[in-house]
Amino acid sequence: MKLKARYIDVDTGEVTALLHDFDCAELGLREKDRVKLSLNGKVTVAIVTTSDTVIKRGEIGLMGTSQEIMESKDGDLVDVSAASKPESVEFIKKKMNGHELSTEEITSIIADISSRTLSNIELSAYVTSLYINGMNMRETADLTKAMVAGGETINFNNGPIYDHHSIGGCPGNKITLLVVPIMAAAGCKMPKTSSRAISSAAGTSDIVETFAKVALTPAELKEITERVGGVLAWGGSLNLAPADDLIIKAEYPLGIDPHAQLLASVMAKKKAVGANYLVIDIPMGEGTKVHTMDEAKAYARDFIQLGEELDIRVECAITYGGQPLGRAIGPALESIEALSILEGAKAPNSVIEKTLSICGMLFEMGGEYQGAEKAKQILESGKALKKFQEIVEAQGGKPGITSKDIKVGQYSVDVIAKQSGYVGQILNKALVRVARTAGSPKDKGAGLVLNKKGGNKVDKGETLFTIYSEHEWKMQEALKLAIRLEPVKIQGMILARVPAFSRVAL
Amino acid sequence: MKLKARYIDVDTGEVTALLHDFDCAELGLREKDRVKLSLNGKVTVAIVTTSDTVIKRGEIGLMGTSQEIMESKDGDLVDVSAASKPESVEFIKKKMNGHELSTEEITSIIADISSRTLSNIELSAYVTSLYINGMNMRETADLTKAMVAGGETINFNNGPIYDHHSIGGCPGNKITLLVVPIMAAAGCKMPKTSSRAISSAAGTSDIVETFAKVALTPAELKEITERVGGVLAWGGSLNLAPADDLIIKAEYPLGIDPHAQLLASVMAKKKAVGANYLVIDIPMGEGTKVHTMDEAKAYARDFIQLGEELDIRVECAITYGGQPLGRAIGPALESIEALSILEGAKAPNSVIEKTLSICGMLFEMGGEYQGAEKAKQILESGKALKKFQEIVEAQGGKPGITSKDIKVGQYSVDVIAKQSGYVGQILNKALVRVARTAGSPKDKGAGLVLNKKGGNKVDKGETLFTIYSEHEWKMQEALKLAIRLEPVKIQGMILARVPAFSRVAL
Repeated sequence: MKLKARYIDVDTGEVTALLHDFDCAELGLREKDRVKLSLNGKVTVAIVTTSDTVIKRGEIGLMGTSQEIMESKDGDLVDVSAASKPESVEFIKKKMNGHELSTEEITSIIADISSRTLSNIELSAYVTSLYINGMNMRETADLTKAMVAGGETINFNNGPIYDHHSIGGCPGNKITLLVVPIMAAAGCKMPKTSSRAISSAAGTSDIVETFAKVALTPAELKEITERVGGVLAWGGSLNLAPADDLIIKAEYPLGIDPHAQLLASVMAKKKAVGANYLVIDIPMGEGTKVHTMDEAKAYARDFIQLGEELDIRVECAITYGGQPLGRAIGPALESIEALSILEGAKAPNSVIEKTLSICGMLFEMGGEYQGAEKAKQILESGKALKKFQEIVEAQGGKPGITSKDIKVGQYSVDVIAKQSGYVGQILNKALVRVARTAGSPKDKGAGLVLNKKGGNKVDKGETLFTIYSEHEWKMQEALKLAIRLEPVKIQGMILARVPAFSRVAL
Repeated sequence: MKLKARYIDVDTGEVTALLHDFDCAELGLREKDRVKLSLNGKVTVAIVTTSDTVIKRGEIGLMGTSQEIMESKDGDLVDVSAASKPESVEFIKKKMNGHELSTEEITSIIADISSRTLSNIELSAYVTSLYINGMNMRETADLTKAMVAGGETINFNNGPIYDHHSIGGCPGNKITLLVVPIMAAAGCKMPKTSSRAISSAAGTSDIVETFAKVALTPAELKEITERVGGVLAWGGSLNLAPADDLIIKAEYPLGIDPHAQLLASVMAKKKAVGANYLVIDIPMGEGTKVHTMDEAKAYARDFIQLGEELDIRVECAITYGGQPLGRAIGPALESIEALSILEGAKAPNSVIEKTLSICGMLFEMGGEYQGAEKAKQILESGKALKKFQEIVEAQGGKPGITSKDIKVGQYSVDVIAKQSGYVGQILNKALVRVARTAGSPKDKGAGLVLNKKGGNKVDKGETLFTIYSEHEWKMQEALKLAIRLEPVKIQGMILARVPAFSRVAL
């Protein structure tokens, strides 16, 4: 059937063809079926949406990416015929039925995700099936390889390539800003790619963006790494394992992160930059992704095993993520905290210790002894600061940058203690919500700084944390939320008192 | 945040708000998050889609049902704020994690499906989780009740109400056209609702539509049933258990029909019309939904048990569905076959026998003896034909209708045997694809008539089946497909020959 093209400028996230109900029935099709579109040698398969108002009989509405693919002009006659469901839908059903998938089947699913051939409904069925039925290590390795193959890969002139990654969930984890310059200052190559925040207050790329350009091309990533040793790039512009971004579009609304998919997503991006030595940080504790030591160990074991399949040497650090790392949360505030440490500040201790431990593991994987000691010397010598400034300059930032160059939000308010006692618990997720309400990560100057952390003594009236914002109304909203959620819990030193008579009774 | 309304006339199947990337970030939101919209007292929660081309900063595009709900005019200032995910998403996750859901949780999921609050991604996660993790009988009963509560219910002046239902998968199953007038002629009330074809060649409503109006209101359904005894209505216009149609939108593209959902969908529509005695036909065999006797018995057991929970007496008939019932497939052709039997034709035997058996079961559930014999007498007496004509007239069809009044497609072609032998197998799904390619169910006159069925002797050159179509090109396409798929398989009488020496070896 020939139908007249009409461009409809709405991004459905799918390759969509809008057909009139009548034409649709004429083709024997219904909503969500597939049609093959041909025009001047361009061919694509689109997902059918029907309408009897927007589109007239004899017309086809090209929405989302379908118009780009077909390069159609309004009025072009597009050849439209019924097409069958992509074969990969059958493979998703196979996983639904609890079966192991072959290499070819996994490759087919990832190829169809990457080309946006799968609809949101099919994509959701994929992540749900994977969440429920899982994948074994062979399948996970195939999944990783299929994801790598679908994107850019970067080949450095010579190795080894060092990398680290945190699976996330611990607010304030800004150590990448310290680890990369320390490693690079020691002559190691570390082409670090990071993500922006999805549900956190600041992803590493959001932080780096306060002082440098993060959207690098693959050629820039390679050139800067070869020349300066390290880079702090945003993964999003590099097209590494791009299926991941599309899969996240279905995982995020469901709030799930299937184990095999998490493993594959992390490792695919590392494989794509040719990592040889990789340390994976697994923050554990309330409010993070991993709640028990057993779970953390299972992740560690799987990352190491998957690394073997991919020829990447992996070590894992299970870290305490039950409260924020350091004191600052939010892009500019975290930049300042990290930069201050490079400039010689001796606090916060948790940030420094974690940085040195991770660097130490990386150095030792590369064959050094007393890696953490080496990292400490580089940090204290000022070489790491110098290297950081080189990296920033290479990424288009201010030459000779210091922590004074970073601006925070002009509105701030202290949240104070209503009673004296000790900080018993810090609620990560509540704190992140407060920071996001203050404007983080979009407003770079927004966030918060903790004045008290777990175990600290607090007097009534003392500041627990300070909220920063670029807009007064956002600061007020954040304050209201902070009062409601009470992210910092204060308790007396005695957590429960057992009456004397009951002790006797015991 | 106040944003200027703009209507965008595309039905996304969801309640969609199109926001500019900048405003979206300003609200701290991303794609697929929820926003609360308020305007002149109208409030709804919409799913966020972002754009930086279709929509300008400060504007909000109202797509799908969101404009209808808000009754906005372009330029109206809509109050937009971040909203949280519907709670039911957590309950879907609970099912993903393999847990039993409470009555309230199930009710919440169905309410959010009915109000289109759930996105396609969430809906797909629901059906996928249900497919994998299932529901127990208590959950299934709650699911059924929640589906009934979300729609219209019909209360007859007095009962009992008889009903029957086929779970489908057997082409040519036109017995409803015979069962309803036979039961009604005996003075029983049978307000039968049916569906249109989804993937079959003709749903009962597609067939009935060749001679009567099927889109009745609940009031019409009641009035005709009370006055004439039976009705042949389309379920779609009655708003019975409307969540079902929305759930099918996610099941259909995945080609799944979760057990609990199938049970609930069938029984909700029966409960909504107040059925007391219900016979469920479970066609079994290759090409149907149920492949083994064990599976069929499991369905039967569950339908009966669910009936007990809902106070409906259920009996099940496990029938042979491995080849089409009767000879005709397609709306008009099936009407003619059924009407001919009412007019006195003694064939096809399979249609008559199945009709009399189902009626017999219904009569006996109502307290009669030898129900099938009673049905036979009513059919042969001509009373069923008369009742059929009354029903047709009540539904706006031609008074005194006969099989001669139904028109079939003007183009036809015989598919003949290439060799002599016996019909070994008939491929249901291939036959349905041929009928659909010929234009069925949209073109009412399209379809096919089998001249040979399983076990029949065939001589080379004899007609196997005849394809009918309303368009020559569709007939040609259907013929091409028939030649490629060979839906009727011819074999020699000896199906496999065992060589003499291997028999000796045994």
